[in-house]
Amino acid sequence: MTPIDLELLRDTLRAALREDVGSGDITSRATIPEDATGLARIAAKEPLTVSGLQVAAEIMHLVDPGLRFNALVKDGDSVNAKTVLAEVRGPARSLLTAERTALNLLQRMSGIATQTRKYVEQVQGTAARIVDTRKTAPGLRTIDKYAVGCGGAMNHRAGLFDGVLIKNNHLAFHSGPAHAIRAARQHLGHLVKIEIEVHHLDELIEAIEAGADVVLLDNFTPEQTRKAVELAAGRVPLESSGGITIENVRAYAEAGVDYISIGALTHSVPAVDIHMRITPD
Amino acid sequence: MTPIDLELLRDTLRAALREDVGSGDITSRATIPEDATGLARIAAKEPLTVSGLQVAAEIMHLVDPGLRFNALVKDGDSVNAKTVLAEVRGPARSLLTAERTALNLLQRMSGIATQTRKYVEQVQGTAARIVDTRKTAPGLRTIDKYAVGCGGAMNHRAGLFDGVLIKNNHLAFHSGPAHAIRAARQHLGHLVKIEIEVHHLDELIEAIEAGADVVLLDNFTPEQTRKAVELAAGRVPLESSGGITIENVRAYAEAGVDYISIGALTHSVPAVDIHMRITPD
Amino acid sequence: MTPIDLELLRDTLRAALREDVGSGDITSRATIPEDATGLARIAAKEPLTVSGLQVAAEIMHLVDPGLRFNALVKDGDSVNAKTVLAEVRGPARSLLTAERTALNLLQRMSGIATQTRKYVEQVQGTAARIVDTRKTAPGLRTIDKYAVGCGGAMNHRAGLFDGVLIKNNHLAFHSGPAHAIRAARQHLGHLVKIEIEVHHLDELIEAIEAGADVVLLDNFTPEQTRKAVELAAGRVPLESSGGITIENVRAYAEAGVDYISIGALTHSVPAVDIHMRITPD
Amino acid sequence: MTPIDLELLRDTLRAALREDVGSGDITSRATIPEDATGLARIAAKEPLTVSGLQVAAEIMHLVDPGLRFNALVKDGDSVNAKTVLAEVRGPARSLLTAERTALNLLQRMSGIATQTRKYVEQVQGTAARIVDTRKTAPGLRTIDKYAVGCGGAMNHRAGLFDGVLIKNNHLAFHSGPAHAIRAARQHLGHLVKIEIEVHHLDELIEAIEAGADVVLLDNFTPEQTRKAVELAAGRVPLESSGGITIENVRAYAEAGVDYISIGALTHSVPAVDIHMRITPD
Amino acid sequence: MTPIDLELLRDTLRAALREDVGSGDITSRATIPEDATGLARIAAKEPLTVSGLQVAAEIMHLVDPGLRFNALVKDGDSVNAKTVLAEVRGPARSLLTAERTALNLLQRMSGIATQTRKYVEQVQGTAARIVDTRKTAPGLRTIDKYAVGCGGAMNHRAGLFDGVLIKNNHLAFHSGPAHAIRAARQHLGHLVKIEIEVHHLDELIEAIEAGADVVLLDNFTPEQTRKAVELAAGRVPLESSGGITIENVRAYAEAGVDYISIGALTHSVPAVDIHMRITPD
Amino acid sequence: MTPIDLELLRDTLRAALREDVGSGDITSRATIPEDATGLARIAAKEPLTVSGLQVAAEIMHLVDPGLRFNALVKDGDSVNAKTVLAEVRGPARSLLTAERTALNLLQRMSGIATQTRKYVEQVQGTAARIVDTRKTAPGLRTIDKYAVGCGGAMNHRAGLFDGVLIKNNHLAFHSGPAHAIRAARQHLGHLVKIEIEVHHLDELIEAIEAGADVVLLDNFTPEQTRKAVELAAGRVPLESSGGITIENVRAYAEAGVDYISIGALTHSVPAVDIHMRITPD
Repeated sequence: MTPIDLELLRDTLRAALREDVGSGDITSRATIPEDATGLARIAAKEPLTVSGLQVAAEIMHLVDPGLRFNALVKDGDSVNAKTVLAEVRGPARSLLTAERTALNLLQRMSGIATQTRKYVEQVQGTAARIVDTRKTAPGLRTIDKYAVGCGGAMNHRAGLFDGVLIKNNHLAFHSGPAHAIRAARQHLGHLVKIEIEVHHLDELIEAIEAGADVVLLDNFTPEQTRKAVELAAGRVPLESSGGITIENVRAYAEAGVDYISIGALTHSVPAVDIHMRITPD
Repeated sequence: MTPIDLELLRDTLRAALREDVGSGDITSRATIPEDATGLARIAAKEPLTVSGLQVAAEIMHLVDPGLRFNALVKDGDSVNAKTVLAEVRGPARSLLTAERTALNLLQRMSGIATQTRKYVEQVQGTAARIVDTRKTAPGLRTIDKYAVGCGGAMNHRAGLFDGVLIKNNHLAFHSGPAHAIRAARQHLGHLVKIEIEVHHLDELIEAIEAGADVVLLDNFTPEQTRKAVELAAGRVPLESSGGITIENVRAYAEAGVDYISIGALTHSVPAVDIHMRITPD
Repeated sequence: MTPIDLELLRDTLRAALREDVGSGDITSRATIPEDATGLARIAAKEPLTVSGLQVAAEIMHLVDPGLRFNALVKDGDSVNAKTVLAEVRGPARSLLTAERTALNLLQRMSGIATQTRKYVEQVQGTAARIVDTRKTAPGLRTIDKYAVGCGGAMNHRAGLFDGVLIKNNHLAFHSGPAHAIRAARQHLGHLVKIEIEVHHLDELIEAIEAGADVVLLDNFTPEQTRKAVELAAGRVPLESSGGITIENVRAYAEAGVDYISIGALTHSVPAVDIHMRITPD
Repeated sequence: MTPIDLELLRDTLRAALREDVGSGDITSRATIPEDATGLARIAAKEPLTVSGLQVAAEIMHLVDPGLRFNALVKDGDSVNAKTVLAEVRGPARSLLTAERTALNLLQRMSGIATQTRKYVEQVQGTAARIVDTRKTAPGLRTIDKYAVGCGGAMNHRAGLFDGVLIKNNHLAFHSGPAHAIRAARQHLGHLVKIEIEVHHLDELIEAIEAGADVVLLDNFTPEQTRKAVELAAGRVPLESSGGITIENVRAYAEAGVDYISIGALTHSVPAVDIHMRITPD
Repeated sequence: MTPIDLELLRDTLRAALREDVGSGDITSRATIPEDATGLARIAAKEPLTVSGLQVAAEIMHLVDPGLRFNALVKDGDSVNAKTVLAEVRGPARSLLTAERTALNLLQRMSGIATQTRKYVEQVQGTAARIVDTRKTAPGLRTIDKYAVGCGGAMNHRAGLFDGVLIKNNHLAFHSGPAHAIRAARQHLGHLVKIEIEVHHLDELIEAIEAGADVVLLDNFTPEQTRKAVELAAGRVPLESSGGITIENVRAYAEAGVDYISIGALTHSVPAVDIHMRITPD
Repeated sequence: MTPIDLELLRDTLRAALREDVGSGDITSRATIPEDATGLARIAAKEPLTVSGLQVAAEIMHLVDPGLRFNALVKDGDSVNAKTVLAEVRGPARSLLTAERTALNLLQRMSGIATQTRKYVEQVQGTAARIVDTRKTAPGLRTIDKYAVGCGGAMNHRAGLFDGVLIKNNHLAFHSGPAHAIRAARQHLGHLVKIEIEVHHLDELIEAIEAGADVVLLDNFTPEQTRKAVELAAGRVPLESSGGITIENVRAYAEAGVDYISIGALTHSVPAVDIHMRITPD
């Protein structure tokens, strides 16, 4: 697991904290003595794949450098219900102020990791790899993609800046895939691969012959996908995308594609149930 | 529908755009002529409640002040599949660069509004009102809460700063609800109400007698809720929370509570399917 | 004394420092050897109530993490002239660079605390509590309100976001207090109280009957205030505001109001005299 | 009157607005219809010297670009009570949201200008000029110094970066003024003048002979000042500072100094009374 | 010429302006009447390739939205000495305030473009393309790389995030190129090419056989380069780097490499002479 | 050597790092084990004057607080080729991520220092001092001017805010130097000197008689400069500027001017060759 780059996330985490704490946590100030100390236990309330421990620790640290965060498992671990993920000790008010923001992050990130792992397990034993998309929550790209990695899938490009994917809306300005690929090749640096989205088998052939580096099969059925794999014959990697669910993902994998990209990994995330119980310490 | 405060969101939207565009949209630069213009049609692909049109317009504007955004419906409208929500005209590259960020926002926000509306409709005809929680995506509190409003529900407090809710983790530092309420009252300003979470009927009585302004019934069954309503006898508003689903929400409403708060409105959002089709113009 | 939230203030303090230091403290660079160390004694030159020690320490720390700040009294203490408030040790140039910004903060904050305490003492023995307003120096709301607390008064709402106060300028859009209160009630969350400003006794009655939670008596004389207290008969808390001075504040308090809000606590602050003497160390 | 640099102030004004508006102006949202429009009249309630109209206009603009601000007087004008300073027209909610922040700025800035003008008038007919100091509200240096200019006084250095003033705390690291001046001269650029603080007449002589460009007489009585003027005999400009009040300022001016600097211009500002009355329009 | 993304540059340009203008342009305020207007002519004083006109226009706009910038040539044009590049009209003070920052940008950017064009012309008629490196001025990457494009060369990767280049310092942690390539391949997404730096012909062979997508020949002589081209036999693109000057660049190009990367394009930039003459208007 | 103010530079250095690292250093992540540690040796590859060690250390620290930077020489030292300037130890990935940004800073800063020292040595033995200008890389003013100091030259004003220099473009709005100087004097504070640019000997006389504090001789030949020095006869310091090169700089110095300002010190900087070699540790 490559650790997440906290320097990169600092502004994001600070903004998350400020939107919740604003001019101050009035409940904790009014109910908790300034010198009270507490112990917070963060525990899974359902089986889940963990993601976000470093980030939760950083939230605690931003609220109060005096909080001591002790992780008991690590990102990427799959754990049972009731597993204690971490313990945090320190000023009770600070624990209460940090609680919701830390949990919101942990629950979303572990939700993504847990859901991702289900897809990954579904294709186990095939050559296909699950990859994510750019359909992440606005402002949380780094966090969401890291969580996908915790679930065992691979990251597609990070944004518009680090990979070329010619989609339908680009093709509308070209006479066909070959035309678009040739136009692109002229402008692109020598480290850049071209992936292109196709919708029919003849477009697939055209794309391969025009020199596409990767081809994305958009909304192909598993059966069409199998034909595409045969036609491509290993000349380029193939990626399936569109209409793929936990039910049919294995059919795509068995059709022989190399990659299966799934927007729902990050755009439709059921938070997992994680709980923080604080007691005097 | 109170319009969303774009001045407040400017940094959030700019960050969302930058994480996607980074050092530049290399695909559009490589495939679309600089002077090409396009027409983007943003359409619903399933029935949904709309939220986020102003925000999507602002994203377009941030990418290129030359893009002209024309909304055809308005936030809060419930529309059928295939309804065109907005049309945008201008430089084709700019449309392509803005597409994903605008859609990510629209799909999340309309997802929240659509899901919220289902809960709201479920309790129609009762006196209960659906309210949201602080379980929003980190950094997207304003956006998420606005979308809840588009779905017809009410916003609970905006953060830790504008409302007091004494929860279990605060009670751990007190001998009981009455003790906590009395401690809080001493420190709080005269515009501040105190809401407190209770877990049993006797705690409810204690809280009311100690002067709570609102009582939250945590994880009560509908049956326990009905008894709580009887016991409270209108002395304070009651809020149900915990374990409430689209299936059982009406049972709580019919039990007579005033408010039902549901974390899933914002923590587990299935994105709705919204599509942007760009053509030369 | 609730400690001030330094994380919240970081940008404010950094901006304060940068506007003074800009491209560099040319006097200290030109006159003080790089390796000289000093001892700064911060002392009261008149009797005062202290506020701002943490903030001054943070300024020192921002200028140079090598400065060691040692507070000898604490915020909220009332001290005599000549009392040493704190000692700071470290690189002499850094002490000189930080001096003015730290003193500007201490002198304003202690000025507010000192002035506030005078009002608080004036109403001693009555049930009335002194509260502040939103008439703070732009950008210094958190600092100014904290200093009010150091002086022993209570904070009114932090801003437009955490409390409802219907004033004259809102009433201009309604037929009367009752109309405004009823309009407001429909839109507001269940944790929000409504305070309304009234100008006559009949408006007071109308407001109470329409369900106001708190009523502000705007520019009432002490005599009118006494009548208002009688009429209200404890049904709602009353707040006096407008035209209140150190001379007449007790008359208002004795008239029986619950709160007396005073803009001058923060909008007209005479800085108290605090001095920093630096010597080689 | 040099206009204030709004580009420089943008972050300051935005921060001032955000601390007041935070997550939203709940009173205006709850009591004013979204489409109501209003007319705000900003009027003096006492005689005053105006400062801050541009800044108030910018606040209005930041809240809502649809507000139209029409100034009826200009910064630096001295006006009678009841003079209307400006009218603002547009969405009523926006007027109400902007009101307090705009007034807080206008009242502080006009307070500084009004107080400054009193000192300036006091020395009329003498050769002395009133100047300000660095004792400004933290974060408001640009605003405070601009207001001093509106009152007719002159600005001393803007910060530590644009002028050398060797004070007592620097002298503690030198054997005397001459030593400090010589040390400084070696390090300073050719556009930099050296001002030095002296406490006795013999230090004055020493400073002049060592080549000081300006000498500040710290806490001299008017009588000592007169002697200093004689001794200096026009060789360097002299500045009086310390212990100067509206009562004794003329005595210093008549003693023949060139500049009189007064911290109270900005560190102890009584806000002037300015009112905003909003009516439906 | 792809236009530069000004939204991306806004913070950079604002910072550039603020470091120069700081608390205000005291010379222009003191010497130019507030209402004076001027005409600024920006002209080349030597033959050069233009770059930075949009950026200069933006600087003018940031200083004063009332300045009207009229470009007479466009970025990428090669012009003679004395060519007027642009005219700007508006408030004279604003022109003077913007002058230096606008010129600093134009002179650096056109300096890069002019120098780049010399290298590009040197290899004319060969298949080799000149490319830049990451050796840009800190904070000016976008600007520097854009200027390279104006000079007719191609951009290598934008940063560490959008391309893989395994260099000597990475190889120190591997037994050889093949080992490093295989390690990298396992971790990288399917849109990522691998470029690797080699120092000998046998490393070149090893890299090609291990599946490198591009090979960088580090500090090869033209003669060694020719051998490398023969050995590679078109299997992968080759890039020359290290020790390449305007004198020997053609020898590398004629040796048959595909790309020649030159750090000096951006790390050692002689500013070209561009002048701004302002006259009353 | 006055140390550079890192607090002031934090945003600049963070921006420099982010533009290079962006969403992550994909090469190091893919090729270097997470737990590998390394030793980086930063060495001069040609004789040079060092500048930027603190800044390089800060970049290392921003990338990873776990990197330990050990400087072996100090800023301002002139060293031979092969001198090791610093050693850095810690996580190998972090060393690789920081490498380019740290080197870009060191190479530019030491480039400026090295070039500056050549000019300084050229005028050795004369009374003339080399000074810099505002022709620095946009956003790098502080860094560039600090490097000039490392090379032994003096800094002219930091920006438009801390010194008055009336140039040709200001004079276009006046009838002559005397007119401009008198206009300026009226508006300027008592710590501000006036420097004015002249183009002929008669302008020099006019400027001196009108009370200029410093006169800049723009594009004078050495011979004209000699005459100017005679005419000025020590009444004001003189500064030569325009058309000065390493070849003719001594002629100007020997002509007797006090200051010689050279834009090329910072606008045309040849980076010096500094190398970072990383090995497993």
